[in-house]
Amino acid sequence: MERIVFTFLVALGFVPALVQQASAQADPSTPLGTGPLPSWNDGAAKKSIIEFVARVTKKEGSEFVPPMERIAVFDNDGTLWAEQPFYFQGLFVFDRVRALAPQHPEWKGTQPFKAVLENDMKTLAAGGLRGLIELVMATHAGMTTEEFERIVKDWLATARHPKFNRLYTDLVFQPMLELLAYLRANDFKTFIVSGGGIEFVRTFSEKVYGIPPEQVVGSSIVTKFEVREGRPVLVREPKLDFFDDHEGKPVGINKFIGRRPIAAFGNSDGDFQMLEWVTAGTGPRFGLIIHHDDAVREFAYDRASAAGKLDRGLDEAPKRGWTLVSMKRDWKRVFAFEKN
Amino acid sequence: MERIVFTFLVALGFVPALVQQASAQADPSTPLGTGPLPSWNDGAAKKSIIEFVARVTKKEGSEFVPPMERIAVFDNDGTLWAEQPFYFQGLFVFDRVRALAPQHPEWKGTQPFKAVLENDMKTLAAGGLRGLIELVMATHAGMTTEEFERIVKDWLATARHPKFNRLYTDLVFQPMLELLAYLRANDFKTFIVSGGGIEFVRTFSEKVYGIPPEQVVGSSIVTKFEVREGRPVLVREPKLDFFDDHEGKPVGINKFIGRRPIAAFGNSDGDFQMLEWVTAGTGPRFGLIIHHDDAVREFAYDRASAAGKLDRGLDEAPKRGWTLVSMKRDWKRVFAFEKN
Repeated sequence: MERIVFTFLVALGFVPALVQQASAQADPSTPLGTGPLPSWNDGAAKKSIIEFVARVTKKEGSEFVPPMERIAVFDNDGTLWAEQPFYFQGLFVFDRVRALAPQHPEWKGTQPFKAVLENDMKTLAAGGLRGLIELVMATHAGMTTEEFERIVKDWLATARHPKFNRLYTDLVFQPMLELLAYLRANDFKTFIVSGGGIEFVRTFSEKVYGIPPEQVVGSSIVTKFEVREGRPVLVREPKLDFFDDHEGKPVGINKFIGRRPIAAFGNSDGDFQMLEWVTAGTGPRFGLIIHHDDAVREFAYDRASAAGKLDRGLDEAPKRGWTLVSMKRDWKRVFAFEKN
Repeated sequence: MERIVFTFLVALGFVPALVQQASAQADPSTPLGTGPLPSWNDGAAKKSIIEFVARVTKKEGSEFVPPMERIAVFDNDGTLWAEQPFYFQGLFVFDRVRALAPQHPEWKGTQPFKAVLENDMKTLAAGGLRGLIELVMATHAGMTTEEFERIVKDWLATARHPKFNRLYTDLVFQPMLELLAYLRANDFKTFIVSGGGIEFVRTFSEKVYGIPPEQVVGSSIVTKFEVREGRPVLVREPKLDFFDDHEGKPVGINKFIGRRPIAAFGNSDGDFQMLEWVTAGTGPRFGLIIHHDDAVREFAYDRASAAGKLDRGLDEAPKRGWTLVSMKRDWKRVFAFEKN
């Protein structure tokens, strides 16, 4: 009976509206009855999120945004997962340099390889995210995109974080997973816009965040189409194609997504222009910055950090109307593995 | 009552599976009872499409493909809409050169502007799609992405095709609209992968094809983030960013979509590598080439055409197992405005 009713509704074209109504009320990531965003403490930050979603989803409201336009963009490092003691993609490439060093005796005397082999974090940190991508290019050129994917997946399946002794994919923020699910339940389409390598993030985004590869924007290297022994492949070249950080983020959003999102979530000054671009659009807009101020459960850093420096954003968030999240105050739980 | 049942099903997580079953049976683009693809004549081409969709959607089948991986890519010019007497984006930019010529007296003596002003199609055709994109860059640099969008939309709303005396957006192929709807009803995600400019195609893709901007891949120019009078904008630079044709198509697919599609649809040798890349993947794959052989209802052209040259694809389609569509034989109707 239900099946017949449902098929009938589909045929009449009624289902999308119903799905929308139903999903706006229920948050599938939480048990019924506990409400949305259970790992967020009640307070201004949580309230601002829920109020924004209510405004844009209210069918009769003056600020209603059609589902197709409900695009939300998320930075990755420091926003969806941790980024200390350094960007995880950095720790990946340092491990790779160490693994490949026996075949490259010349690296002992050449920067930035020398710094990696001597564990000279100061020199490496000075190169920032861009330096890392250049290091990835140097160490992973000439191979196909499939070979690179395999190497990243192997590393993610085995390497462990120095502080938490857990897989890096365990270090995703539980409150942000709930936020992604909450937005999707309200017909938002969620994208990652990362300064990190697009092919690195895509290896785990679907499994870990529920974000498919086609909804990941990031820095990229040049690839080249070749037919090798009758088989078409894409070969990675040691050449930067696009650097998706700072001013690059709005450019990347325009290139890959092609319309202005209505909500943006970040944590560092690398996300500033993304939030600026998103919140400058007409109609309801939402910007949020996570402040890492919890040295006990995660890390505390901001203005002076090598990875995830937050300086301008900390000063300007209040006057720009962006929500500033204190991890310490606003998050009941940081990681899923924590006991409540 | 139905509402309660439905909300209950949503809460239990049953809905996605039901939606899938229901949509696999119904084609929302056609009245109930007429079956899918009504503008396709019965024959090998139509049969190959329906059989492929049945294979990958059969839940218990050995060739079942999960919905997330049902990615289908479509060329635009000559595949979703017409491309004669020349690529429509070419006709757009020729009109723009004529409109801007009074402010540029020097164009009378400079190629390729001279060729446009003298209507010298031979010279223009020799530059191909790439030449056109360069012409767009030259004529539309320095403006913001929003200004460019406005110009394209104005042109599409008023300019008329020389043969059919209709808006260009009326010259989309009805059988392909039905194919897009049929694939989407079977949980495929449909993308455009065009040699044309990404920002040109995005102005109409959602309205005309139901394909949102974030599912359009195409050639692009460099844009730059700037804050103009306190307002963040993206400014178009006269510099090619990415040329999405021939070998560029698999590169663009990897960059923008990040996983290999299972079906590809094209019409010219500019689509050859895209079909080669897509159909070389493991598991069930589908490639289709449209042959423009209908001079009465549309245009007849292939090996010697300036726009949409089809030579290698015509020779190799049979041995590669790609479906070759004859517009004349396989399509009951070419355009929606034709009487049946």
